[in-house]
Amino acid sequence: MNPYDRLKALGITLPAPVTPLAAFVMAARSGDLVFVSGHIARKDGKPIAGQLGDAFTAEEGKAAARLVGIDLLATLHAFLGDLGKVRRIVKVLCLVNSAPGFTNQPLVANGCSELLVEVFGECGRHARSAVGVAQLPLGACVEIELVAEAG
Amino acid sequence: MNPYDRLKALGITLPAPVTPLAAFVMAARSGDLVFVSGHIARKDGKPIAGQLGDAFTAEEGKAAARLVGIDLLATLHAFLGDLGKVRRIVKVLCLVNSAPGFTNQPLVANGCSELLVEVFGECGRHARSAVGVAQLPLGACVEIELVAEAG
Amino acid sequence: MNPYDRLKALGITLPAPVTPLAAFVMAARSGDLVFVSGHIARKDGKPIAGQLGDAFTAEEGKAAARLVGIDLLATLHAFLGDLGKVRRIVKVLCLVNSAPGFTNQPLVANGCSELLVEVFGECGRHARSAVGVAQLPLGACVEIELVAEAG
Repeated sequence: MNPYDRLKALGITLPAPVTPLAAFVMAARSGDLVFVSGHIARKDGKPIAGQLGDAFTAEEGKAAARLVGIDLLATLHAFLGDLGKVRRIVKVLCLVNSAPGFTNQPLVANGCSELLVEVFGECGRHARSAVGVAQLPLGACVEIELVAEAG
Repeated sequence: MNPYDRLKALGITLPAPVTPLAAFVMAARSGDLVFVSGHIARKDGKPIAGQLGDAFTAEEGKAAARLVGIDLLATLHAFLGDLGKVRRIVKVLCLVNSAPGFTNQPLVANGCSELLVEVFGECGRHARSAVGVAQLPLGACVEIELVAEAG
Repeated sequence: MNPYDRLKALGITLPAPVTPLAAFVMAARSGDLVFVSGHIARKDGKPIAGQLGDAFTAEEGKAAARLVGIDLLATLHAFLGDLGKVRRIVKVLCLVNSAPGFTNQPLVANGCSELLVEVFGECGRHARSAVGVAQLPLGACVEIELVAEAG
């Protein structure tokens, strides 16, 4: 199955890609590596704002991270023209807006990681860091960046 | 215009590069990629310490991030010997020392991002993540690392 | 001296590598670059939990970061089959679980950086960022990820 068939089987329609608000781009390529900018959690185009361990539970954060993953795929689709060019998701950095005492960043990050494996199969399996940060742009609950290898 | 002409037109003189205080280096190369260490905001060699949303406004943070950008250029100049070897700024990670509730990390990060575009033109446009962190070395208000592609 | 002789001279026995608990892997390779996942500080398999500047001093954090470094080496050994394939440690990101006011993240990070230089010599000297974060998985005091170049 190619990535688009998998997305269809998952019932996911890729949204329009996010556009940067400033002097940067949503993805940049060097050689075979594509560096994708940090994407914050959004629903219907608006940030999902609030901290994990306060406004949101870990499961809610996981659902938000899955939405971020869909936006990351939309950016890769727009940037590469074809998700089939993705040879490997190499690295994911998941930044979780965390209230003091919230330590389940990995469960939140799984929302994105599991989506990437569902869409790309074993090639979606990546190195990862999950971290609790003090704040994120627009108060978003999660921000995720990644590095992919593309053909 | 080459990067040095642009710097001159901007009235910027590159300072001496920062020297690492420990068992690391300010930049390391692998293939065409140059990974530049996190640089904290400094003025006259001293850290600009304090949190955004407390000691500093977003505009003050943006000015500090521009100073970090100048230090990053000084490091690239010292490491490569010639800023003209920079083919592309690929990725920027901007870490903003953020008081609770400060959510304008992107505006702060623009201080560095806009400088890179002013100096390198379209080749300066990069993927980026901006994040609010709990603290930074020496209490600095901003720390920025980057990945560049060099010839 | 090869890395294993250096480890022996340092009295370090590599532990079994950490296994990921979710849909990710501890290391992923693209070309010559190996991206190693964030590893949290552990002792006897259990997380070393607590914040720097509260539960732990900078020196205690440095010791924890050295333990993380040993786990990172165990992962590289398991992933590459031979630490002698490491041509260079390129980049380290050290995330320090920091109480408000703790600003000595570089000293903590040195625990890992110095180990890498002891084991790989000049090839172990890397670009680095050290950051104070709000929380980490399982409450760990330190988390470190790295990028290595391998043959």
